[in-house]
Amino acid sequence: MLVGGIEAGGTKFVCAVTDGKNGIQERISMPTETPEQTMPRLFEYFDQFDHLDAIGLASFGPIDVNPKSKTYGAIMDTPKAGWEHYDILGAMKAHYPDTQFAFTTDVNAAAYGELKMGAADGLDSCVYLTVGTGIGGGVVEHGQILQGYSHPEIGHMLIRQQPEDSYEGTCPYHRNCLEGLAAGPAIERRWGKKGHLLPADHQAWQMEADYLAQACVNIALMLSPERIVFGGGVSKQAQLFPMIRESFKRQMAGYVQTPDLDDYIVHVALGDDAGITGALLLAADQL
Amino acid sequence: MLVGGIEAGGTKFVCAVTDGKNGIQERISMPTETPEQTMPRLFEYFDQFDHLDAIGLASFGPIDVNPKSKTYGAIMDTPKAGWEHYDILGAMKAHYPDTQFAFTTDVNAAAYGELKMGAADGLDSCVYLTVGTGIGGGVVEHGQILQGYSHPEIGHMLIRQQPEDSYEGTCPYHRNCLEGLAAGPAIERRWGKKGHLLPADHQAWQMEADYLAQACVNIALMLSPERIVFGGGVSKQAQLFPMIRESFKRQMAGYVQTPDLDDYIVHVALGDDAGITGALLLAADQL
Ligand SMILES: Nc1ncnc2c1ncn2[C@@H]1O[C@H](COP(=O)(O)OP(=O)(O)O)[C@@H](O)[C@H]1O
Ligand SMILES: Nc1ncnc2c1ncn2[C@@H]1O[C@H](COP(=O)(O)OP(=O)(O)O)[C@@H](O)[C@H]1O
Ligand SMILES: [Zn+2]
Ligand SMILES: [Zn+2]
Repeated sequence: MLVGGIEAGGTKFVCAVTDGKNGIQERISMPTETPEQTMPRLFEYFDQFDHLDAIGLASFGPIDVNPKSKTYGAIMDTPKAGWEHYDILGAMKAHYPDTQFAFTTDVNAAAYGELKMGAADGLDSCVYLTVGTGIGGGVVEHGQILQGYSHPEIGHMLIRQQPEDSYEGTCPYHRNCLEGLAAGPAIERRWGKKGHLLPADHQAWQMEADYLAQACVNIALMLSPERIVFGGGVSKQAQLFPMIRESFKRQMAGYVQTPDLDDYIVHVALGDDAGITGALLLAADQL
Repeated sequence: MLVGGIEAGGTKFVCAVTDGKNGIQERISMPTETPEQTMPRLFEYFDQFDHLDAIGLASFGPIDVNPKSKTYGAIMDTPKAGWEHYDILGAMKAHYPDTQFAFTTDVNAAAYGELKMGAADGLDSCVYLTVGTGIGGGVVEHGQILQGYSHPEIGHMLIRQQPEDSYEGTCPYHRNCLEGLAAGPAIERRWGKKGHLLPADHQAWQMEADYLAQACVNIALMLSPERIVFGGGVSKQAQLFPMIRESFKRQMAGYVQTPDLDDYIVHVALGDDAGITGALLLAADQL
């Protein structure tokens, strides 16, 4: 068996292959340009291999993951030039007609990777939340990526803004949704400095922890995952974790049981490899 | 085959049996007293039947639905006298040792009933929200009741209170969570009258619709169900539905696709039978 994985991100594409026994064997990374520029380079990479039994395609979203839909396989509304309404799965299938495909979001793949080989190893459910340029969430329940009408969009959850926080929010749709208040660019604009330049004891982090904890409360109440795993640039601020757990406890106010919070709200284990690992695992699951 | 169903509610227990072909064949309803009073009456009812292959037990919550937990099968913190920490599933199994059991919340069973035979018939996923004395939510995804660490508790989701709404909220845990702001008792205390006594054009309903719509937005973003089904006393106010849909559209602000909203946010089809129907279907699934 030889399977491929693609993590199609907003800034870069990561492509890799594995035989399922020896981890990630080959990989490349390339900047996300237009489909006309990026797709031929991607084909060139995978064409090196004789035959791929399956490919797991994990794409930035929103994407159409509903097999009953006419636009299944396409990227939906996106500001990324050239990618709007681009049928990325269709293009892959046309080039590799004898290959099986798995298709999901980059964050769902990361959640799956963390569940099978990372911070949620051995569990049946987890939520993966990446806090970076945006906030994205992936969900696995019963060992399976959650999919209803579409994929979750946890990052845009409507949350309560703190009365002392006068920042307007960055989300072009909702202004002050979770992403609008707590992603990296919101931190930068609210405090006038990029997150990694703010000291660990800056008040920015208590506010950030409160917003992320509020998101965790709603995730626990609505999805009841066995673990919540944080990734992305902002989550590199390690001082956030005890603050998120403390704030979670306060906001949950004793309602619903969760595992010990040190085990419940954790940092990603696979780091930047979560998405590509999940994509390869999802490909192997097709066989 | 003969299976039983129990909808163990906070005010009444409904018990029923079916052979799986002829709908609900036999049923009784009795007030919820203490376990010492209620359980013998329940046994008396089911003892009438020669042998039940399976029983679906759908209980008011919170309950422990995690088979790995030491208190699996018990009712957790509840103000209902005598029921706190009562091992209701254990008591059933002790009395019917040769019967298979399904165990879930009353609202999860209602969601399952609506999915298989009601307002979400033919779909793979739905969320059922009952708005009555409290707010409870049940979730089915991939045709299966969603269960992670525990069952969802959607009713306690943290939502944004309107600035013009000075009501403090009824929830003993969170004060102004969804249930605290939008269940029947919150309407009654905010406006000084029970909901069914307020005229259909009272401003109470626009506020109620906005809160329920906000809940629907977060449900759509986090669980992406194919349909959201409302039950419970408050949802009998039919004028709410167009207002919820309108407010949902406004608050979602064009982000994420949903089915046509007239099909997406709907009233329960099985009415008060949703829970017992789901309990019987879950019992039959055990065989
Ligand atoms: N160590 C850090 N501490 C705080 N914020 C960071 C850190 N690293 C990156 N960020 C912020 O996270 C955002 C970038 O997110 P990242 O996850 O690195 O990439 P992307 O989301 O674009 O894939 C930027 O807004 C950046 O300021
Ligand atoms: N037709 C109605 N319109 C508005 N509110 C109602 C209506 N019927 C019941 N309610 C309210 O709903 C709550 C009772 O909820 P219900 O679903 O009937 O029972 P329960 O939740 O206790 O099982 C009460 O607060 C009541 O005032
Ligand atoms: Zn948003
Ligand atoms: Zn509450």
